[in-house]
Amino acid sequence: MSYRAPLRQLRTALKTVGADRLAETTLFAEATEDTVTAVLAEAARLAENVLAPLQRAGDLHPARLENGVVRTSPGYAEGYRAIAEGGWVGIGADPEYGGMGLPMTVVSAVGEMLSASCLSLSLNPLLTQGQIEALHAHASEEIKALYLPKLVSGEWTGTMNLTEPQAGSDVGALRSTARPNGDGTFAVTGQKIFISWGDHDLTENICHLVLARLPGAAPGTRGISLFLVPKVLPGAEGDPGAANSLRTVSLEHKMGLHGSPTAVLDFDGATGWLIGAEHAGMAAMFTMMNNARLGVGVEGLGVAEAALQQALAFAAERRQGRTPNGEPTIQGHADVRRMLGEMAGLTATARMICLDCAFSLDMARAADSDEERARWAARGALLTPIAKAFGTETGCRVSDLGIQVHGGMGYVEETGAAQYFRDVRVTAIYEGTNGIQAMDLVGRKLADGGAALRGLLGEIGAGIDAADAALAGPMRAALGEIERTADWMLAAEMTDRAAGAAPFLRALALMLGAHHLAAAARIDPGLSALAGLHVGRLLPEAGALCAQARAGAQGLYAFDPAELRA
Amino acid sequence: MSYRAPLRQLRTALKTVGADRLAETTLFAEATEDTVTAVLAEAARLAENVLAPLQRAGDLHPARLENGVVRTSPGYAEGYRAIAEGGWVGIGADPEYGGMGLPMTVVSAVGEMLSASCLSLSLNPLLTQGQIEALHAHASEEIKALYLPKLVSGEWTGTMNLTEPQAGSDVGALRSTARPNGDGTFAVTGQKIFISWGDHDLTENICHLVLARLPGAAPGTRGISLFLVPKVLPGAEGDPGAANSLRTVSLEHKMGLHGSPTAVLDFDGATGWLIGAEHAGMAAMFTMMNNARLGVGVEGLGVAEAALQQALAFAAERRQGRTPNGEPTIQGHADVRRMLGEMAGLTATARMICLDCAFSLDMARAADSDEERARWAARGALLTPIAKAFGTETGCRVSDLGIQVHGGMGYVEETGAAQYFRDVRVTAIYEGTNGIQAMDLVGRKLADGGAALRGLLGEIGAGIDAADAALAGPMRAALGEIERTADWMLAAEMTDRAAGAAPFLRALALMLGAHHLAAAARIDPGLSALAGLHVGRLLPEAGALCAQARAGAQGLYAFDPAELRA
Repeated sequence: MSYRAPLRQLRTALKTVGADRLAETTLFAEATEDTVTAVLAEAARLAENVLAPLQRAGDLHPARLENGVVRTSPGYAEGYRAIAEGGWVGIGADPEYGGMGLPMTVVSAVGEMLSASCLSLSLNPLLTQGQIEALHAHASEEIKALYLPKLVSGEWTGTMNLTEPQAGSDVGALRSTARPNGDGTFAVTGQKIFISWGDHDLTENICHLVLARLPGAAPGTRGISLFLVPKVLPGAEGDPGAANSLRTVSLEHKMGLHGSPTAVLDFDGATGWLIGAEHAGMAAMFTMMNNARLGVGVEGLGVAEAALQQALAFAAERRQGRTPNGEPTIQGHADVRRMLGEMAGLTATARMICLDCAFSLDMARAADSDEERARWAARGALLTPIAKAFGTETGCRVSDLGIQVHGGMGYVEETGAAQYFRDVRVTAIYEGTNGIQAMDLVGRKLADGGAALRGLLGEIGAGIDAADAALAGPMRAALGEIERTADWMLAAEMTDRAAGAAPFLRALALMLGAHHLAAAARIDPGLSALAGLHVGRLLPEAGALCAQARAGAQGLYAFDPAELRA
Repeated sequence: MSYRAPLRQLRTALKTVGADRLAETTLFAEATEDTVTAVLAEAARLAENVLAPLQRAGDLHPARLENGVVRTSPGYAEGYRAIAEGGWVGIGADPEYGGMGLPMTVVSAVGEMLSASCLSLSLNPLLTQGQIEALHAHASEEIKALYLPKLVSGEWTGTMNLTEPQAGSDVGALRSTARPNGDGTFAVTGQKIFISWGDHDLTENICHLVLARLPGAAPGTRGISLFLVPKVLPGAEGDPGAANSLRTVSLEHKMGLHGSPTAVLDFDGATGWLIGAEHAGMAAMFTMMNNARLGVGVEGLGVAEAALQQALAFAAERRQGRTPNGEPTIQGHADVRRMLGEMAGLTATARMICLDCAFSLDMARAADSDEERARWAARGALLTPIAKAFGTETGCRVSDLGIQVHGGMGYVEETGAAQYFRDVRVTAIYEGTNGIQAMDLVGRKLADGGAALRGLLGEIGAGIDAADAALAGPMRAALGEIERTADWMLAAEMTDRAAGAAPFLRALALMLGAHHLAAAARIDPGLSALAGLHVGRLLPEAGALCAQARAGAQGLYAFDPAELRA
């Protein structure tokens, strides 16, 4: 079965989170319903006709390193060209540099379709989009003028270079160095690992954003600066010049995402340009990362939708046993329905959360007043770790259930169900592990004293007042538990918060799912049954998660991991 | 890091479930603590020194079909020889046929170690063990005399042939036929798929137990008979004779378990012998399957333990960031501890449930009176689907968390964390999917009016009276929810039961984990912290699961899967 873009579901989700209001703002006045509909329909064609056929080729024929050059999977060059020539890399970018200036909400909806149809290739433009945003916010006018048009058009691609063998989640432990060359450029030296699309043969240049330390920099994250290090040194007009002093050492052998080359890059005095202020690299990198975190949540969502579609199609065709409701296929079995219902509820929830987050980030730029923009920004910042962690967990869980619905056929690679499961697993790890996201939620995102969180919970409470009576009761009970847990978190020490961070994030996401699905059912009555299923079967987990969230750190530190070893 | 057999944990678990009482029975009088300790220590050496080094070779160099013959992975021939020559295939088999006659409890403890060290190879003797049991119970004396010594010694191996393309969970839909040859043998014809270790080059003969229909047989499961179809027709002394009329059509390309060849077998009038009565094949097959279901639960447990060990070792070595308790490595981070604690709690729970199930099955043979034996048999039958489903879910979940603890390194195949995750996934599917197990629990296993279940819940209640006060409160609350849900199940229609079967099974397993861990902590105070963690952090999920279990089928059938499609 082949992927079909869920245009109806996207439209309902956009309406549910209020994205139609974007066209009322000056900034996004052109993002009218007609325009958005046309853009999504065009992206759907790209995803269904061009990208989906590449999905399995990338898995069977991984990108490989040959004589120092990375060769991409069969068909990826054509697929990438279609993405670039369609203008999809730059759909959210500033029109001044050739972008379409569409809101992040639309970029995310498009991103879902690209991720669903070919996750490994879609990661490439996602990284470039993050780089465009970082350069737009922090680079000099000269750099912007030279690089942005090339990146926006997809002529060049972008990467993020943070990780080193000893510096993963702890970015501050990195050792790469940058020394001034005396001409305004820097010589960047060090080894970076886990660089997605760190090298490839799709474009004539690849632009690396590299975190490194200037001489005399402070230890930790405060001594890190950001550099732009192109693979090929461009001439003043962007024409290709000499090769820079960097090389691809190796590619990782990964469980999935084989079409996306994950490189070890060695920078040996490579020429780089400082982006942003000295020692302010982390701030600049966070511009890129926050964008990318939402984008990775959307990746998880995309795979969830694709896996759901495949499972629905299989369950509607496979005949096995007599079903209680007389349906001839296995979708008539209660336990299969339980799995399909959970898959659908989680996927819808992830979609609403990701689009809601994107909408907030858009309003943080487009709203009328400073105060409104700040409020939206805080709301978007609060939702970002939830979108990332829950979106990717949903990709993992839904693809796992997708295998189970297929039975033995799910374990056989030809079906494709296993590839979704293998590919999506990394999304729970990269761009900040989901544990890091949860810590961000209960740490930095509660540093406002809980104002943004309380605002969000207030919205949910107001939604319950408007909800169907059958949904309102359980939703109110769950919200009460979450409010109690939020209060507990705000009063707790950071270590106790951290001990409950992951379950708290998940409880909040399930609550948001109920909130959005109840609202969506008012827009599309066809979703009423799914909303009921979510509230009746998935939301109860929130209570258990809140109990875990409030358990505190003491129990965790009471046990000695060494005691568990054989 | 290499696998170390968890002998201390196994010993504690055996004591906790009361397995020391086996030596007090006549049947297992030789299974003294000293003997069991010696057997487990010897199995530990096999697992650590011989099998663990094969684990990655099997993944990197899958078994392959060459000119109609399956070639196994490098080193597997030597590994298999060590298993056979050590007498491990027949440790549970009747001494009359060369077995060691050890109880299933010990077989399971050994099975954990073999599964943990090399799941793909260990599956081979597990299947043979099931076949030995089926032949012992149902075959004629001639067949037993000819085949059992060869199977028990490991000279020959056994397989199970149930599945056909249109007959998976619905075995009754199978179409393979058997026609009498007039000489007491039968001509078996049909295609069987998903045959684990269906062909290989480890032994000179492979014995297939094949389900097929005799002429005029009733449709469905009541018209199925069981046949023994050897790859090579043995002479009267078991000497190799002519090749039988069957062939390996192909091997599946699976997500994991690459070292285990999964074959499509074509039987073309192959000579077979009827095992058991005509049309009574399902009953005979269930003898094999029930054994195998516990064995597959133990497979999940084994992989969970191996993944836990690897994560513990990584977390104790990897330095990343400052930890709240000052530990230099990531095991000091609260969220890493949360994951390690969950992994350890689930693994310990799976171990106790599997060994408790095995102990019941042993007592069902060894207890003094018919009444006692029947009671133990019912208890073992009740625990079997829980052991299978929860053991394998635990393998999946713990290996998933194992990847997460490793961060990016977990997604890279060299680490081995990903292989555990890929390999173990099939255990939740084969030998009856976990959905089928859950249906068995709430259907056939409650057909006694709930007597066995109420007996088990009574044991848990009595355990709570003896438990530490801090554990007793939450345990009593959870037990109350489960009792209420059990009552609901017993009063409900089968479709409503089925709709809540999977969450009910899991709730019961988490409750059993608390029960056993509280008891284990009285034997080994070093487990007190883990028991506390399980009750405080994992057991709360049981409440939410019970709510789902009682949600009924109505909500599931209210939604139209077609409505969810794009």
